[in-house]
This record gives sequence, structure tokens and C-alpha cells, in this order.
Amino acid sequence: MLDRPTPESRVFKVVGTRPVRPDGIDKVTGRARFGADMTAPGALVGLVLRSPHAHARIRSIDASEAEALPGVKAVVTRADFATAQDPDDDTLDNCMAGEKALYDGHAVAAVAAVNRSVARKALKLIKVDYEVLPHVTDVDEAMKPGAPILHEGRASETVPEGMSANVVDRFQFGHGDVEAGFAAADRIVERTFRTAATHQGYIEPHACLATMGGDGQADLWCCTQGHYMVREACAAMLGIELGRLRVTASEIGGGFGGKTTVFLEPVSLALARKSGRPVKMVMSREEVLRATGPTASTSIDVKIGMKADGTITGACAELRYQGGAYPGSPVQLGAMSAFAPYDLQNVKTIGWDVVTNRPRQAAYRAPGAPMAAFAVESVIDELAKACGLDPIDVRLKNAAQEGTRSSYGPTFQQIGCAATLEAAKSHPHWSAPLGPNQGRGVACGFWFNFGGNTCVSLNINADGTVSLSEGNPDIGGSRASMSMMAAEELGVPYEKVRTVIADTGALGLNDVTDGSRVTFAVGLATIEAARAAIREMCGRAAKIWGIDPDAVVWEDGAARPAGPNAGQFPPMTLAEIAAVASNTGGPIAGHFEVNAEGAGVSFATHIVDAEVDPATGAAKILRYTVVQDAGKAVHPSYVEGQLQGGAVQGIGWALNEEYIYGSDGRLQNPGFLDYRIPVASDLPMIDTVVLEIPNPGHPYGVRGVGETSIVPPLAAVANAVSEAAGVRLTELPMSPPRVLAALEATRT
Amino acid sequence: MLDRPTPESRVFKVVGTRPVRPDGIDKVTGRARFGADMTAPGALVGLVLRSPHAHARIRSIDASEAEALPGVKAVVTRADFATAQDPDDDTLDNCMAGEKALYDGHAVAAVAAVNRSVARKALKLIKVDYEVLPHVTDVDEAMKPGAPILHEGRASETVPEGMSANVVDRFQFGHGDVEAGFAAADRIVERTFRTAATHQGYIEPHACLATMGGDGQADLWCCTQGHYMVREACAAMLGIELGRLRVTASEIGGGFGGKTTVFLEPVSLALARKSGRPVKMVMSREEVLRATGPTASTSIDVKIGMKADGTITGACAELRYQGGAYPGSPVQLGAMSAFAPYDLQNVKTIGWDVVTNRPRQAAYRAPGAPMAAFAVESVIDELAKACGLDPIDVRLKNAAQEGTRSSYGPTFQQIGCAATLEAAKSHPHWSAPLGPNQGRGVACGFWFNFGGNTCVSLNINADGTVSLSEGNPDIGGSRASMSMMAAEELGVPYEKVRTVIADTGALGLNDVTDGSRVTFAVGLATIEAARAAIREMCGRAAKIWGIDPDAVVWEDGAARPAGPNAGQFPPMTLAEIAAVASNTGGPIAGHFEVNAEGAGVSFATHIVDAEVDPATGAAKILRYTVVQDAGKAVHPSYVEGQLQGGAVQGIGWALNEEYIYGSDGRLQNPGFLDYRIPVASDLPMIDTVVLEIPNPGHPYGVRGVGETSIVPPLAAVANAVSEAAGVRLTELPMSPPRVLAALEATRT
Repeated sequence: MLDRPTPESRVFKVVGTRPVRPDGIDKVTGRARFGADMTAPGALVGLVLRSPHAHARIRSIDASEAEALPGVKAVVTRADFATAQDPDDDTLDNCMAGEKALYDGHAVAAVAAVNRSVARKALKLIKVDYEVLPHVTDVDEAMKPGAPILHEGRASETVPEGMSANVVDRFQFGHGDVEAGFAAADRIVERTFRTAATHQGYIEPHACLATMGGDGQADLWCCTQGHYMVREACAAMLGIELGRLRVTASEIGGGFGGKTTVFLEPVSLALARKSGRPVKMVMSREEVLRATGPTASTSIDVKIGMKADGTITGACAELRYQGGAYPGSPVQLGAMSAFAPYDLQNVKTIGWDVVTNRPRQAAYRAPGAPMAAFAVESVIDELAKACGLDPIDVRLKNAAQEGTRSSYGPTFQQIGCAATLEAAKSHPHWSAPLGPNQGRGVACGFWFNFGGNTCVSLNINADGTVSLSEGNPDIGGSRASMSMMAAEELGVPYEKVRTVIADTGALGLNDVTDGSRVTFAVGLATIEAARAAIREMCGRAAKIWGIDPDAVVWEDGAARPAGPNAGQFPPMTLAEIAAVASNTGGPIAGHFEVNAEGAGVSFATHIVDAEVDPATGAAKILRYTVVQDAGKAVHPSYVEGQLQGGAVQGIGWALNEEYIYGSDGRLQNPGFLDYRIPVASDLPMIDTVVLEIPNPGHPYGVRGVGETSIVPPLAAVANAVSEAAGVRLTELPMSPPRVLAALEATRT
Repeated sequence: MLDRPTPESRVFKVVGTRPVRPDGIDKVTGRARFGADMTAPGALVGLVLRSPHAHARIRSIDASEAEALPGVKAVVTRADFATAQDPDDDTLDNCMAGEKALYDGHAVAAVAAVNRSVARKALKLIKVDYEVLPHVTDVDEAMKPGAPILHEGRASETVPEGMSANVVDRFQFGHGDVEAGFAAADRIVERTFRTAATHQGYIEPHACLATMGGDGQADLWCCTQGHYMVREACAAMLGIELGRLRVTASEIGGGFGGKTTVFLEPVSLALARKSGRPVKMVMSREEVLRATGPTASTSIDVKIGMKADGTITGACAELRYQGGAYPGSPVQLGAMSAFAPYDLQNVKTIGWDVVTNRPRQAAYRAPGAPMAAFAVESVIDELAKACGLDPIDVRLKNAAQEGTRSSYGPTFQQIGCAATLEAAKSHPHWSAPLGPNQGRGVACGFWFNFGGNTCVSLNINADGTVSLSEGNPDIGGSRASMSMMAAEELGVPYEKVRTVIADTGALGLNDVTDGSRVTFAVGLATIEAARAAIREMCGRAAKIWGIDPDAVVWEDGAARPAGPNAGQFPPMTLAEIAAVASNTGGPIAGHFEVNAEGAGVSFATHIVDAEVDPATGAAKILRYTVVQDAGKAVHPSYVEGQLQGGAVQGIGWALNEEYIYGSDGRLQNPGFLDYRIPVASDLPMIDTVVLEIPNPGHPYGVRGVGETSIVPPLAAVANAVSEAAGVRLTELPMSPPRVLAALEATRT
């Protein structure tokens, strides 16, 4: 075996190139099979009955008329699910309401019928006796004593008196003495910010097909970011063992964090169990928006003190995130990440987790961080301007470095925070001229990244092709990047490796495709599985040559005799060894299972130019540049796509997207006409600069890249729009009416 | 680690019990998904145009009118397949005719259209210009000089002059001096036997669903006995790499060897490639009978010399098998197995492989052996009677034993030939009284069994359940037996293990489910994979306890400290170790890849009572007892089912089943009304006696059991019917007209 090169010293042949994506043709031609593309003989249509009330006690449900309707094969309510649940896990409560419906759109019953028409009729025949209760959808209102309480008796011990029982948790991070820091400052800015709830906006609605036998053996096809998570959640809710449920992930039409939990899946299984038939369920867009996870809306106070030279002396933030109807908003991550780009002596963040009568939030790309960055980076921008300093210089002066004690605790290793700022500063964008009513914003962002449980199997086929199986749905190019890393390690062309997503029966536990973990963790496991296969192939060659396996090395895709045997036999390529595998012991494979650690953190700096129409308040993005430390970029085009995608979603969040609730607590814009995500004509080309500071925790230096890119845009756009408008905007989205109101306030 | 017990000494807890079969409920309720149960959005219907001629040159094919028919998306002919084929592999020629159509039903073109109606119309619009040629369907006729020749210029070097070029191969086995043996005999019997072609008669017709992208990435769902074989065959015919084709095996509705090759699969892929759409194909029963593999029809000469005390002094057989339109009849296996039950000093078999204008034969349960046994066991029966000896005693006197040099070469290890004869002799059936027109037959049978390439992955789930994936379609209970062996080894209840059949992308190469290899080879790999997982679990426990992994043993489903640490820590069960796997390194798995050797040979003795109606010639089976050496019976109910199923198929072959060709070379009975397989009312209960002589080549002593049971019935039934009729019957099937004719011949 050769000594392995370090990530820095390694010369790559495949990694870093840009091969054609393996799912491209399938997705363009319609061959790819998404959640709604699977059927089974005799499959029923499943539909969900949803609460029209934001908050209501369910006195009773009478499904007898629905059940009697010809063609209806099953109706399920909460009584059809397992009762013994983890008390800290509200996923079942969210999938099917218990004693109360907690938001507009909350599932209260479901029906399976022979077709959609019968199913819709059946929904209308289910009689739910609701006791309508007062509701609250605003985070600040929900915290106040006297607010309508969602979960009686659930108040957390960590929450002080003077707050309502809707405040369910408190988090605090930081170090040093913030008050002393403020005392040492030349200038202090303190402001309050608000962000709206936004939806992940994936194109593909949730969809699944479930079957379950009378013996409890169940199979589920669904679009998800993690079919092992689906297995675990559904097995618990159905009261069956993990081994009895086999989940296959379909192709996925976007997730962005929103498909890291279950909605329809356990319901379809319950209907399949009750009806004895396959049950297919597909959400409408209205259901997606009303009942699946948007992100949290927030209210955030930030106070930062700065010396005249730009040194931050003290920084404090208090974050209030409403996570919808159940605990678990990403406020903890917001509080951890708020000041992470900076090397601070005195820093403190407090996070409040608040429940309201809204759909339970789901993870959305770097959950919790973009809102915190919006608040913090807005204040830094204001301070830099007040001090007459360049906003990039201010950030560079305070930038976190290798060895910095982070604001959330751990000490940073090799990181690229300052590098992204320097690259942004030297980018032509930063010094380009601006016109009237235009402004330029800059902001930094940080994300943790994650490793986690991962299994990979790699099989060498008899013709020298390689079948790689991983267990994470491919949401950002992982089939390409795994094939590339396997090809790199094995020394074969990329085209020889096909990566498939195995179902839960064929491969061990893989954590959800989240935390930007997959390229890092599955890549690491892929490389190790390839190395195991290489060891086996060297052993086969040694057997054929009659020499010690330790005297065989693997170089350039071939086993070669080494040491005292060097040159004694011609090299045997992977294909040559594969062709005779049956005669040398049997099929050749490599496997690796790991709970991966060492995912490197990631930083980005974004620059954006915006123009504000003084007559309408409409903001337009003119130019956008993303600079991000990606670690080693396995497939640069996918990396660039991640950076662009994050920026675009951030632009939508900054300018237009929001959940609008009426006074009745009902969502007023559950459709893509009224909930407006950016389209191509709204956007300039998003330029990208990919920095490759190796992650020492990965053999190739890979870091996660998918989430960091959504952290800076809210702040960067706000800084640009604020400059263009000449007024500091502190509430998102900066929609035309809101910007116009701010402009008009300055004119009076 | 503990020392492993030998197969003989091992005390089993799970193996040998009779748990409920895991696929039972699915198959009874319709949840199981067979070949025709898969669909894809936009799937086309594929149909095959088949030759109406037994032998014809294809001058040209004009598909232009068919292609112009609205709704037709693709027409393929031989030109749409890869040209570079292995010259010894005629599988493509059989799937799609080249220059000639070689049998009635031979595929000459195929069409994919939006529905079945359009596809049928399109078939009629394809114009094939045939030059009809003389044909031959009988094996003896085909061998004669002057017979119509199927493959010009293909005569084998091993075939002497005086035979036609339809004789494509010759095989010879044996040892000693046969002529000297005959000279030492007191009695010699020499007879010629004939058997008809019979079909495997699986209930499920061939069916598949293919998709292929413009980049050559293909997926195939099909019913098959070996999806890796399908992958290899189709990849070669399509000219794509193995890694580009992912094949998933559906549930299978019977195979019996007939699904060990491809028919529709490459055609559906070619249509999918050409149309750019998914293509689904399902055969009709007529297509199954006309164009998929029946077994070979045969003509066999046997000559045996015997001393008055029953000792066989010389034995010789010449076997002529027609394998249909292409070389590859199972005559070699017939010639090898003919005398395998006996310890002979002078033995010789010659086999001739002959082509005729019939569908290419496919493997059928112990391919080639039942016909050879029919001939040999008939002659031994006649000799025993002529010598006034008990036919079981005669067989026992000559029975192969451990150490016997087999008639085909190798020396036998631990075998159960004599044991089955002794058990048959002491069975009440052997001494039960018979009525008028009744006869009792006995016969022995032998099968080789096989190991082969095998991969198994075993994953321990967090709740202590176990997901096992193997790569062989379950045709005889392998999901149950693998779960049982894994449970046995791991020390957990059977119900904790769910075995699934992985697709070709998720697991390495697995040879076809044939050769009775699966319980042996996949079982062996399952046990080794479980042992790998146990090593890992012992390591995790050692890590938790802070002791040396070598000081941990696995007993009764738990890791226990051993040696100096014995008793220091309470045992950790599999479920306890699984629950904390994420904290001790990640998911726990065991994998094993092997080309398994050491499959033990298998023997059986069958006893059958038959009654012949002197007026009609109709034979009825009154009683049937199977005695077989199964090695360790993992799940005795499945083993008994295999023994019963083999006997029943053999009874059908003996009494009724046959391919009937008209003088035009067309099959006259392509349907289950005219091709008559036995139904329940035709049969008595088949009694079974399972002997468990351990196979030393398997950790639990397992042997294959699925094929041996079809070897003796043809002979046993013939011996019974001959006794009942009072005349030796030498041609199968012994249908009423044929028996009546034999009876009438004795009356004249």
C-alpha cells in the first residue's frame, strides 16, 4: 500500500473536473422517477382532511358516513397510530392532530379511496366537531403573558416568569464580558430586526406510495432527503420494527431541508395497513404551503460596540424564533452562528424558542443562520459606515482565524473566513461604479457542516465497471461526486462508475441528506470503501502472482508488484483483475460504515448591487458575487450551482417571500402566484468565486458547501437596498410597499 | 471468538424450525409484485413478431408501414442489437433471429406502441419475406445424414462422419472396460428409450419493464432467476457496460430453470433505447410455450450387465438430446449423472448434442438428468426382476458410497445414496399390498448441486432488527432460510431478520438461482456476513468496556467479556450494541463475497404405486414416497415442498406432458388445455422422508435440495406403470394411447 498524500499535496485526475451530470438526461427527458411517478396494482388515492382553524380543540370526529361511501377503503385519524411516542418528538402530532388542531392546514384525518373523486367526496363527509380557540401567529405576540397558549403545561424550566408558556426553550452562547465590551466601544448600534417565514419552495410536492401486508411487512416509495429517517419516523408512528419497513427514495425535485421530516408517509402507511391496499398520496401546492415546513419567522435584537478603528469590542444578540406549532425552531443554530465569522472577546447570544399557530417549521438550508446573519451583518454595516470604514475592512479586522475561539464555543481549525473577505475585496465587483438609486451591500456568513452515520458499498463488476451504492438521496449532485471520488481513488475514468441510491433494506443507516454532510461524509466513506476494494484487488493480484499481498501496490488503476518483486510481473489493471475475480475467490467489493466526524466549517462573503425605484419601492438586484470557501471542490459546476442557488433563495427571502396570515389565522397566500419566489427574469447571473481551503478532516479536503451560501444574502441585499434607499431597512421581506413606506418616512 | 462447532455437533435453535414464510401473506393477498406488476409513466406496450415457420431464411423485413402507424414509437429487428457477440453464445440469436428463423415462434421483430391494440396492428404491418426451408424436429431424424441442416458450417470436430451437421457436440465419461464388464455378466439388458420435450410450466409468463436514457443508463425490472445474468446478457446484446444497466428482480411466479436466460429483456431495452420511452412486455401463454425453453427431447440407449447376485459388471449409455435450435442441450449433464448413484468398475456414457427446429431448450430442474435416470433405472429394474431380486436390494448392492469413484470422475465424499435406499426399504410404503392392475416402482436419482459467486450484506438496525440483502431471486424460500441462518448465527429470533433481494446496483455479482445453489452458497455467505457483524459487535462492546476485542465472545445473541475479563461486565445484547452504534463508530454491518465451493451432491430414492386402466391405458398415481438426502434441512417445510414439487413435475413428465409438433413443424398444443400439467386432483399426497446427512462443505451441513427430486420420478413411474401394465414402457409420456397401444401389442 502506498502512503496516502495529504489533501494539500494530492494531485487529482478526476476530482476537480466537470463531467456531465448522471441524472441530467433523465431529468430533462422525463425518465427520472419522482415521488408521484410510482404506482402499484390496485393502488388507492389517499387524501388528507385539514383543519380550517388556526387553533381548535377536536371534540370528536365522525367518519361513519365517509366510511360508508362506496369506494372508500379506509379512513384514519390519530387513533390509528401508535400511542407510545417519544414525548419530545412532535412529528406524529404534526402529521395527524391529536386533541387540538394547532394551525390552518393541520391534518385531522385521511381517507383512501379507489379514485380521487371518491376520496374528495369522502373528505367532505367526515364530520369534525371543533371548539375554535383564540390563536396567535406572531412571535412577539406569542411570547407575551396572556397570549393564547398552544401547549398547556409545557412551559420550560429555562424560561423566566413574565413570558407566556409559548416560550418553550432558551439557549445562550458566548464568552467574555459584553457590558465591559460595550463600555470600551467608540460607537454602539442597537437595532431590532424582523424576518418573515419563507418556504423552501421545492418544485416537487411531497408524494409517496405505501404498501403494508397483513404481517406488518411494509414498503414505502417517497421523495425525501432521508429514507432512513422516514423509516425510523414511520416505524415509530406505526408501532412496527425498523426491519419491517423498507423505504426507497425516489428522485427528488428539491428539498432544501424541507424534506428532512415526514408528513404524508406515515399517513399513507396507516391507510395501507387499514385498507390492505397500496395507497398513493400526493400533496397539492396549497397543502405544501399550508402544512409543510416553512422556516421560522423571527424577531431579533442586536447590539454591537465598535472602536473607531473598526475593532468590535462587544456583541450581543437576542433571537426570538417561532417554530410553528411545536418546539424546535432553529433558534439555537441562529444563536450559535450569529457572530461565528468574527474573533470576539466579548460576545453573548440568547435564543428563545417560541410556538405559534403556524405549521411546524422544517429545516431550510442553514436553518436559523440567515436571519441571525441578517441582523448582525446589518448592524456591522451600519457601524462601518458610521465609522467611515470600508465594510470589508471592518470584517477583515475582526475576522475569525485558525485558532479563534468561536462565539459558540469550539476553536476553529483551518478556515477561510478572511480568505473570502480578501477575495471579495479584490474582486472587480467591489470597486465597480454605481449609479443613482443604487447601493452595494456586503455580508459574511457561516455554517457548521456535519458528518454523521454513513454506509457505502462499492462493487467491482466483471467488465471493470464499478457499481457504488450510497444511502443518501441525491439533492445536490452526490451521485456525480461519489462516482468521481471512487474513480479518483480506484484510478479509473469517471464514466466507469455508476452510483445508485440504495433502499433501506440494502444498506445500513445513513443520516439525512442535511447539514451539507453528504459530499464530506459519504465521500469519505466512498474513498474508504474504494480503498478496501483496492486492498482486495491487490490481494487477488498477489494470489495470481504467488507473492505476498503486502508486496503489491495500487497505482494508476492497477496492481503492481513492489518491493523485492517490483517489475517481476506486468501490472494488472482493475478490469483485468475483475475479469478473473470468480477464479480468485469471488466477487470483489469494498464497504465502509462510519459515523463521520471532522466536517469542516465554511464561510462565505457575498457582494450585491441593488437599485431601488423611488416611486414604487421596488428593489432590483443588478449584480451578485458569491465568494465561498468550499474546501476541495469535487465537481466545481455543482459547487457553483450550490452557491448560486443559495444566493437566489436568499434574494427571494430578502425581497419578496413571506407567509401572510389573516386575522383569522389562515394563510392568505398558499400558492406560487401569491407567494412569489424569484424567477430567472428577476435575477442577474450570480457570479461565483470558489476558494479551496482544504478540510483536514477529509482525505481530499472536502467541506460541505450547500448551506453557507444562503446565510449572507439576506444581510447583503438589505445592506445594498438600505444604501440605495438611503434608509436602513430592518424588516424582511423588503417588498415594494415596505420599502416605499420606509422611503416615505424619510421624506416626511 | 468461540471455536465453531462442526455441522454434526451443532445444536440449532432456529435452523430446523418451520416459521411462517415471509412472502406468504403478500402472495395470498396480491401485494407481491411480479414481473407484470411494474409500470412507469408513459410506458409503451412491447410485442414480438414471431416466425410462423419452423425453418426459414429471412430475406428481408420491411417495417416502414408499422413505423408509420400512429402510436408506434419503435420497431426493432436484429439490426438494433450489438453485432460483436461471443460466437459460442446464441442467446441473442434466440432472442431475435438473425439470418434465419429456426423454429415456430422464433422472434423476428418487435414493436413498441402506446397501447396493446396499436402494437398488435403494427405487428401485422411488418412484412417479413421468408424463404421457407425444410425442417426437422426429431432428434434421431436430425442426426441422420441428409437431414435439413440448421447451422451450415457449424459441425463439431468431435462428431464423426456419418452424422449430420446438426450434431454439434460429443461428450464421454466413464472408466474401466465396459466390454469386459458385459463379458462377466450373467444377464444383459439393452434397450432404447425416448422422452418428449416438456416445459417448466411456471405460472407466471415472462414479463419486464425497461427504461433507457439517451446516455445509455438503463434500468430493467423483470421476473428472472438471476438478475445479474440478465444484466450480463442484456449489456452484451445492447453493447453497453455492466455498470450502466441496473436490473431489479421482481417476485417470481415459478422458474424451475426456465428463467435462467433472457427472452424479452434485451428486446424491451432495445425498444426503450429506440423509443426513448419505458417499454413493458408480457408474454402470452402461447408465447411462453412456443418460444421459451422447454427441456430437451431425448433418445437414449442403455446396456447393463449384471451378475445373478445383482452386481452390475458393466454399464453403458448413449444419449442423444436435442436442445432446440442452438447448441447447448443438457446431454453432458445427462451423461455425467446417468450412473452416478452406483459404484461401478466398468462404465461408459456418450452424449450427443443435437440441434433441431424447436425452441432453444432452457434449463429445467436437474437439466438432463431425469431422462438419463429414466433409461438407466428402467434397465436396472428389468434386470432385478429378471434375476428375481428386490429392486432396492440390487441398488443397495451397487450403491455409491463415500470414497466411490463416480461414473463422471470425482470421488464422492460423505453421501446419502445408500441411506435413501435403506430408508425406502424400511418405509411402510415398500411393503404395502397392491391390488389388481397396480404396480410399484422404485428409482434412484442424483444431482450435483453447485456453489458459485455470491454476495451478502447484513445490516444491524438501531432497534436490533437485522436487514439482510442477498442477490438471488427467491424461488424456493431463500428469504426464509437466509433469515433463519442469520438469526441462528446472531442469536436473535427469526422474526428480527428481514431478507430482501437487492438489485444489481446494490450488491456484487450473484450467480443465477440454479444448480440448487442458493441455500448452500448464499447461506454460507450469510453465515460469514453474520460472523463479520459479530466480530464488529464484539469490538464495539470491547470499546465500551475498555478491554481487548479478543477478550470478548459472542454467545446467545450477546457480547460477553471472556478470559481474564469474564463476568466483569454484564453481557450486551445485539439490540443494546445496536442502540449505541452511532456513538461507538457508526452503523454495524457484515459483508461477504465468495465464489462458493463444496456444494454437496445429493441422492434420492422414490417409491410410487400406479394403477393402469386396461380399457383405456390411463395410468393413475396411487401413492408416492420421496426419500432424499437434503443435508441439514434449514426449513423442513420448504424442503418437503421441494421434494413434493419435483415429484409432481416428474409425474407430469412421465404421464402426460409433451410438445406435439405437426408435420409443418409448428407446435400443436401451445396452451395449458392441450399441454396438460398435473393438477391436484390427479395426484395423491406426496409423502416425504428427509434425511440429513451433513455436507462437510457448509458450516451447518446444508446441501442443495431443489433438483434431485425430479430425477427419479420418470423412472419410478415407468417402473410402476410397466409392472401394472405387464409390459415394459420405454417412451414418455406414458399417455393413455401409448399405454393402450403397448397393452394391445401384448394381447396380439
